[in-house]
Amino acid sequence: MTSVRKIIIDTDPGQDDAAAIMLAFGSPDELEVLGITTVAGNVPLSLTSRNARIVCELCGRPETKVFAGADRPIARKLVTAEHVHGKTGLDGPELAEPTMALQPGHSVDFIIETLRREPEGTVTLCTLGPLTNIGMALQKAPDIAPRIRELVMMGGGFFEGGNITPAAEFNIYVDPEAADIVFRSGVPIVMMPLDVTHQLLTRKDRVKRMAEIGTAPVKAMVEMLEFFERFDIEKYGSDGGPLHDPTVIAYLLKPELFNGRDCNVEIEVGSELTAGMTVVDWWYVTERKRNAKVMRHVDADGFFDLLIERFARI
Amino acid sequence: MTSVRKIIIDTDPGQDDAAAIMLAFGSPDELEVLGITTVAGNVPLSLTSRNARIVCELCGRPETKVFAGADRPIARKLVTAEHVHGKTGLDGPELAEPTMALQPGHSVDFIIETLRREPEGTVTLCTLGPLTNIGMALQKAPDIAPRIRELVMMGGGFFEGGNITPAAEFNIYVDPEAADIVFRSGVPIVMMPLDVTHQLLTRKDRVKRMAEIGTAPVKAMVEMLEFFERFDIEKYGSDGGPLHDPTVIAYLLKPELFNGRDCNVEIEVGSELTAGMTVVDWWYVTERKRNAKVMRHVDADGFFDLLIERFARI
Amino acid sequence: MTSVRKIIIDTDPGQDDAAAIMLAFGSPDELEVLGITTVAGNVPLSLTSRNARIVCELCGRPETKVFAGADRPIARKLVTAEHVHGKTGLDGPELAEPTMALQPGHSVDFIIETLRREPEGTVTLCTLGPLTNIGMALQKAPDIAPRIRELVMMGGGFFEGGNITPAAEFNIYVDPEAADIVFRSGVPIVMMPLDVTHQLLTRKDRVKRMAEIGTAPVKAMVEMLEFFERFDIEKYGSDGGPLHDPTVIAYLLKPELFNGRDCNVEIEVGSELTAGMTVVDWWYVTERKRNAKVMRHVDADGFFDLLIERFARI
Amino acid sequence: MTSVRKIIIDTDPGQDDAAAIMLAFGSPDELEVLGITTVAGNVPLSLTSRNARIVCELCGRPETKVFAGADRPIARKLVTAEHVHGKTGLDGPELAEPTMALQPGHSVDFIIETLRREPEGTVTLCTLGPLTNIGMALQKAPDIAPRIRELVMMGGGFFEGGNITPAAEFNIYVDPEAADIVFRSGVPIVMMPLDVTHQLLTRKDRVKRMAEIGTAPVKAMVEMLEFFERFDIEKYGSDGGPLHDPTVIAYLLKPELFNGRDCNVEIEVGSELTAGMTVVDWWYVTERKRNAKVMRHVDADGFFDLLIERFARI
Ligand SMILES: [Ca+2]
Ligand SMILES: [Ca+2]
Ligand SMILES: [Ca+2]
Ligand SMILES: [Ca+2]
Repeated sequence: MTSVRKIIIDTDPGQDDAAAIMLAFGSPDELEVLGITTVAGNVPLSLTSRNARIVCELCGRPETKVFAGADRPIARKLVTAEHVHGKTGLDGPELAEPTMALQPGHSVDFIIETLRREPEGTVTLCTLGPLTNIGMALQKAPDIAPRIRELVMMGGGFFEGGNITPAAEFNIYVDPEAADIVFRSGVPIVMMPLDVTHQLLTRKDRVKRMAEIGTAPVKAMVEMLEFFERFDIEKYGSDGGPLHDPTVIAYLLKPELFNGRDCNVEIEVGSELTAGMTVVDWWYVTERKRNAKVMRHVDADGFFDLLIERFARI
Repeated sequence: MTSVRKIIIDTDPGQDDAAAIMLAFGSPDELEVLGITTVAGNVPLSLTSRNARIVCELCGRPETKVFAGADRPIARKLVTAEHVHGKTGLDGPELAEPTMALQPGHSVDFIIETLRREPEGTVTLCTLGPLTNIGMALQKAPDIAPRIRELVMMGGGFFEGGNITPAAEFNIYVDPEAADIVFRSGVPIVMMPLDVTHQLLTRKDRVKRMAEIGTAPVKAMVEMLEFFERFDIEKYGSDGGPLHDPTVIAYLLKPELFNGRDCNVEIEVGSELTAGMTVVDWWYVTERKRNAKVMRHVDADGFFDLLIERFARI
Repeated sequence: MTSVRKIIIDTDPGQDDAAAIMLAFGSPDELEVLGITTVAGNVPLSLTSRNARIVCELCGRPETKVFAGADRPIARKLVTAEHVHGKTGLDGPELAEPTMALQPGHSVDFIIETLRREPEGTVTLCTLGPLTNIGMALQKAPDIAPRIRELVMMGGGFFEGGNITPAAEFNIYVDPEAADIVFRSGVPIVMMPLDVTHQLLTRKDRVKRMAEIGTAPVKAMVEMLEFFERFDIEKYGSDGGPLHDPTVIAYLLKPELFNGRDCNVEIEVGSELTAGMTVVDWWYVTERKRNAKVMRHVDADGFFDLLIERFARI
Repeated sequence: MTSVRKIIIDTDPGQDDAAAIMLAFGSPDELEVLGITTVAGNVPLSLTSRNARIVCELCGRPETKVFAGADRPIARKLVTAEHVHGKTGLDGPELAEPTMALQPGHSVDFIIETLRREPEGTVTLCTLGPLTNIGMALQKAPDIAPRIRELVMMGGGFFEGGNITPAAEFNIYVDPEAADIVFRSGVPIVMMPLDVTHQLLTRKDRVKRMAEIGTAPVKAMVEMLEFFERFDIEKYGSDGGPLHDPTVIAYLLKPELFNGRDCNVEIEVGSELTAGMTVVDWWYVTERKRNAKVMRHVDADGFFDLLIERFARI
């Protein structure tokens, strides 16, 4: 990967979304952020749209194009996760209201127009929240599917089970129909499930190293992570919280940190009990088409080394 | 209704869609067609987009704005009905390819922009096909819901059962998730189910009166209807085929022809056996909110009188 | 039908069940009641088991074998219908507690043993309630299926919709999984749906003729029906209540009163909205196997003539 | 546990069922086998009923009462697993046809009568196959539920996923409705999922120790296991096959070998994709009632020591 890779970040910040965006901004040699599109998820759209801009400004990137997208899932009532992320979605540090404006137009149209404008196979979609915007874009403009270089998502879980329900991970649970459109689209997918992200705990020593960077944006990030981790520490008795969303960006920077398998993934849309489950045919017990690279292991130390190195560049 | 009513016709022509459009064009004192938006349904989108323009030109209205919309349902594979409508969707007469162009842009955006531009409560949506475009517009721009004056749809069936399956009518069956969005949107809905349209048979005497008009467009329409009716005559042993879609336009012109009841309608999205069924709580056995006026009876002679009178004006 | 037909009546009395049982007892030249098996339905099992015996004693037939069966559906929580039948299931007249005892053993075993003992093809099952006992018997002893002469059921509804929900009739709704076993069993089925029974209203003139019989059992029956009809009169504004269950017995006595069609019937078990619906492929739009004779029309006057004639013989 | 524990083994042998039965017969000081009830599962009922008797005779226990049970799941078509167990279910060694007879009567009735006869809380159900018989018994005789001491089952899987489909383990997949009845019954349940059994591989060294026992029954068992393991070795690339069913008996003998957690388990019955999945709320993300002790870890060496010690006593 010698040239800069063009990405769109679709996101519902969220403290870990913020960390992912910061990781991308800290890696300008490798990644060009064409735009950030927001979606309702961890908190309602008005807050994710606000938070995305706060993170841009925090990272000194107020020129970034931020578009508001879907305020609700395609076929369900919105479920949010304030119990994890706090009332604003970025609870933890004191944060000023953003001064930069949202772009006019809908996230879905920005995604479609960008993919139609840029050369085929050059734009990567990085999804950190429910897949509503992507599902809507593929529905409105099926011609974009073969133009997407790769879609790298944080979402799902299999051997680890779910988090919002016993069977489902939050991002997929919020909009299973959108996820279903994406997984059936033929777009090359890399999936970062809970199986991976639960190996990436914000342990004290790691956060301490981060804090030693000492800059204002990383200081705020550290305060976010300290708020964020309390939920999982209480739930799992773990040593820190799992850093979900930065895996997506880390994969673009250092794919060798991750280890997985090409297999079929189907989304449960027909049952309340298991709604939003990502059913992964890891052992190839079906004949279904392999439509995603599902990651299962990660070099956690390598991941945090990368994260801290890039945070220091902000 | 002293002033002209502004309508958008969302359609998948289909011979009976063509009759509905002709009825609208024949009623310029009452109806202003702001645009026609097409959707995949009876035949694929490329054909419905072609057919809509053919009908405009046949009626001498080539200035009409026609937009192409969704080429597939929101969450399912497209099902079409060539067994009813023939390979082109307008089988029957010899028809020239249209010369007028499609408008640039997507049906969904035309619907959204029109509803945002026109004064609140002045635009009526007339849907003659699967509700994909409308569902997508409501999903992308929830602010339009309270701006819609009324949505009059041909779709569903209850006491009459279905037609494409024992339980489901074709328009709803093709995109149940879109229909579900529409019925939950709070938009005032008037529903013309099979219960009504099966009372409107293209009997020989009626078609004969139509044929006597003698103009070229009506001649073509008569040939369409003669092709169209063969399917139902064979299936039901009835005396002609049911004229589904013109009921929507007829209702705007003469609502007193129809008789129905405000009740709750829910769309079956969770079962294969009954997918797309419109479950009508006609007898109020549930406490569910009344979200549609469901028509059950029609003055068939009055309907055909109206149709023939307006066809004669084309 | 020159010889006496052997029947088992499976029932959840219910005033209309009582009328059906009375009709059978009033027809000893045609019908031999091998036993009555009870099931939870209109009211809980303890009451239906009590009520079945009350009716036997009321008809002067205390020697009848009555067996208690399933106290709950196979895979769902029991739903009852006291809002229709009153708290006891036989509200209306003053009725003494039964003195005859229940038979030892379970309804399911009585059904199985009877069918294995009697010559193949000689025993008819008459079901007036949820199909739980029959489904359990077919599950436990699949060998009985080809031994059943015919299963005549009151249950389902199609063009008439449902009664307990907009889509489902009570008997099927209570135990859809049992109904599904029955409809897939290959047993010859005659189905009396709401479409038929709603044509059989307990009009004042009919009840008056009944009352003129003047015997004690029929007097009690008249009081039952006067209680029973109040529910439907209020709901439908009809002239009397629909006499559902006696259609099953009437069909055995005078099949020519009824008119229907062989078609496929599938039971909805997978959706909450339409659970228990009997999806009838009346118009043959599918290739599914025809597994039931679905009745749609009845000679109502002929039916009441028969009923009154036989009631008079009690 | 000083006194002998009374058990009923419900089973669909299956080589690993055979090993479980052998383990029980090898432990007469702790376990009294009141009877063995068979069910359709790995192979059809006629074969599981044959195989159960073969194992009894192989272990020198021809006086054991063996009852045939359900030949099909409650609400689905039977699925079998000859691809794992071979055509007979006990492929591997040469085995003579059994000479002992099946008991008259149905498994379901034996289970009901035994539980009603024995003192309350003294009989343990050991289930090694689909839960059809147990579900039917609980449906027919709900009074037995509080009389069951404990139900120890091999079935399900969670962190390990499924085996017959990506989401479901075979025993539960075959009859999810029966499993659902069991898990809702209030009976104390101990569940041995794939999570545990996949830790118990028939490694060469373990089978070698078994083979050294040298008796005829154990020799046949070794040949069974050598046939059985080939499937999983090929699928998982593991060192031996997982010994599922003997975990149930081992738990009764040495519960301290196993480690788990009380939690809620729900069975997926409403979706094809995830049918038969055991959704385990391991992390208590719901408020659902804890209805099973779900095992997750096992002392594999201790387990094989126990197995081999008891096999040697046969
Ligand atoms: Ca996120
Ligand atoms: Ca149409
Ligand atoms: Ca009844
Ligand atoms: Ca087994």
